[in-house]
Amino acid sequence: MSDTPVLLARIRSHHLGGGQAVVQSLPVQTRRMVDNASPRSVDMNGTYAVGQLYVQEYRLHAPRHALPVLLMHGGGMTGAQWEATPDGRDGWLWRFLQAGFDVLVADAPERGRASWAMFPQVYAEPPVFRTQEEAWTLFRIGPRDGYAAAPAARRAYPGQQFPVPAFDAFARQFVPRWPGHDDMALSAYRALLAQFGPCLLVGHSQGGGYAARLARDCPRHVRAVAAIEPTGMPTQAAPTGVPHLLAWGDHFLPEDAVWAGYRRETDRYWAALRQAGDTADTLDLPAAGLPGNSHFCMLDRNSDQVADRLIAWLDAHAPLPRRGEPRC
Amino acid sequence: MSDTPVLLARIRSHHLGGGQAVVQSLPVQTRRMVDNASPRSVDMNGTYAVGQLYVQEYRLHAPRHALPVLLMHGGGMTGAQWEATPDGRDGWLWRFLQAGFDVLVADAPERGRASWAMFPQVYAEPPVFRTQEEAWTLFRIGPRDGYAAAPAARRAYPGQQFPVPAFDAFARQFVPRWPGHDDMALSAYRALLAQFGPCLLVGHSQGGGYAARLARDCPRHVRAVAAIEPTGMPTQAAPTGVPHLLAWGDHFLPEDAVWAGYRRETDRYWAALRQAGDTADTLDLPAAGLPGNSHFCMLDRNSDQVADRLIAWLDAHAPLPRRGEPRC
Repeated sequence: MSDTPVLLARIRSHHLGGGQAVVQSLPVQTRRMVDNASPRSVDMNGTYAVGQLYVQEYRLHAPRHALPVLLMHGGGMTGAQWEATPDGRDGWLWRFLQAGFDVLVADAPERGRASWAMFPQVYAEPPVFRTQEEAWTLFRIGPRDGYAAAPAARRAYPGQQFPVPAFDAFARQFVPRWPGHDDMALSAYRALLAQFGPCLLVGHSQGGGYAARLARDCPRHVRAVAAIEPTGMPTQAAPTGVPHLLAWGDHFLPEDAVWAGYRRETDRYWAALRQAGDTADTLDLPAAGLPGNSHFCMLDRNSDQVADRLIAWLDAHAPLPRRGEPRC
Repeated sequence: MSDTPVLLARIRSHHLGGGQAVVQSLPVQTRRMVDNASPRSVDMNGTYAVGQLYVQEYRLHAPRHALPVLLMHGGGMTGAQWEATPDGRDGWLWRFLQAGFDVLVADAPERGRASWAMFPQVYAEPPVFRTQEEAWTLFRIGPRDGYAAAPAARRAYPGQQFPVPAFDAFARQFVPRWPGHDDMALSAYRALLAQFGPCLLVGHSQGGGYAARLARDCPRHVRAVAAIEPTGMPTQAAPTGVPHLLAWGDHFLPEDAVWAGYRRETDRYWAALRQAGDTADTLDLPAAGLPGNSHFCMLDRNSDQVADRLIAWLDAHAPLPRRGEPRC
């Protein structure tokens, strides 16, 4: 499959959603904007586009599926996480195209090519930056004391599927993020769904939580949710008619309260979906014969095998007839 | 040509170049990172990847050209400027793929998916943001008093090729930028060229200046430069053996000192290249029968025609035998 070429009918990108902000009463600066050019006056008072997302659109010449997959990155990341693995293998963008899906790859507002706005004039607060040290533990690559500045000195969890020698390359993908911007992101994603119509949502981490919330709030525009280690579940479930899949990796430590909280909250929401009559499946990767995954199974060494499981589930469950009333 | 599908052998992306920065002695914060989750401790002291660029790699199944085109965006923009026009037509990425070139699309450091670093701890200064009002005049869409908040009330230059009704959509692409980061960007671009080998550089505005500097400093890795309304020329020319093309649009006002300066500086450098024995052509679009272009001819309504001119020039001039010693 790795060498199968892909015949595309279109590659485009779009900036969707958001609105405008007007900034006033900033002092006019004089700054050298171009090397070897004279300093010039820079007046940043004026009108800005804010709150938009960015989405790449890959359309196959002959898609096997009627609906596109929308790939939704996690917090502190961009759509680049779907394009390649840090050790130089094909990403899930390519795998989904090879599997016959049209693919949309988003950058949520304030990440990557979606752009971001000045603070405190537009955003209230400064952003949060993720250190490599935090990523090492939060993404369950290895124990806290297993991180070292020198890559060769690092100690990952035994059986780790993450391509550990490429950890520093992976860290080049990290982008700043603003907590408290969920409504901004969800609004932009709703604008995307309104423009592109029903999609199959594949969301990772924060993007997985967004996918679940979009399915609850806009079931008309969502025909499947595959949530990979999601965070930020809706607090209340409602029948959506949308099949849900939940995927968990490995290396959850009993003493890790952060991940225990995310899992508990998500399992509770999945149970509520089933209670409401929805399909809400769980793919526990270690239990399913794929041990060792980090928080980033789409980048792990067995990423192709995990993709195969997701694609098989999408083939079996999407698109399905929907129940419930359109709400978007 | 618009409907010709493209058979791709690969789509990947990479983060290249840069290094690491260690940030220390920031206070530990307590912030709610996920809606409905408990606030948690956020310690931003630690190690960050800084100075890297991002590049998408589109490889054709059967490229007509031996060398890839590297598309280098302008200041305050990202690689998205090559992916589509704001009025929803195909971008130059797609046109170059259809024309048989492998294509690389970069986001320079601190733009888009390349990510950016905190200030003043890593970057010395805050960034500069471009207002819609500044863009309207600087990009030569219309006169200063032709901008209005209401799109319908705006007055562009007569014969304007920019898709004026899509100006607000275009403004969603703008990203902050840091003046004084040219060395960071050029270093990352050199890392890209070292990894991917010789490329045909197509650079716009700031990216056009970078392309000219890379051709001067790394002639071994550059086989052609097409600079579209470039800014930031090298101060001194040296024989490169690399054919250069310069493209200018329309609507240059006699009283516009900023653009007069850029044109004077660039024309001087082009003359010096010719003096040194290099091919250094100029495509003055209005003189060549394509009047009305803004600063963004790749987004203008006649973008396909401008692309055809560039592709014809690349077909005629690249790759060519090189003179001079390898220096990268």
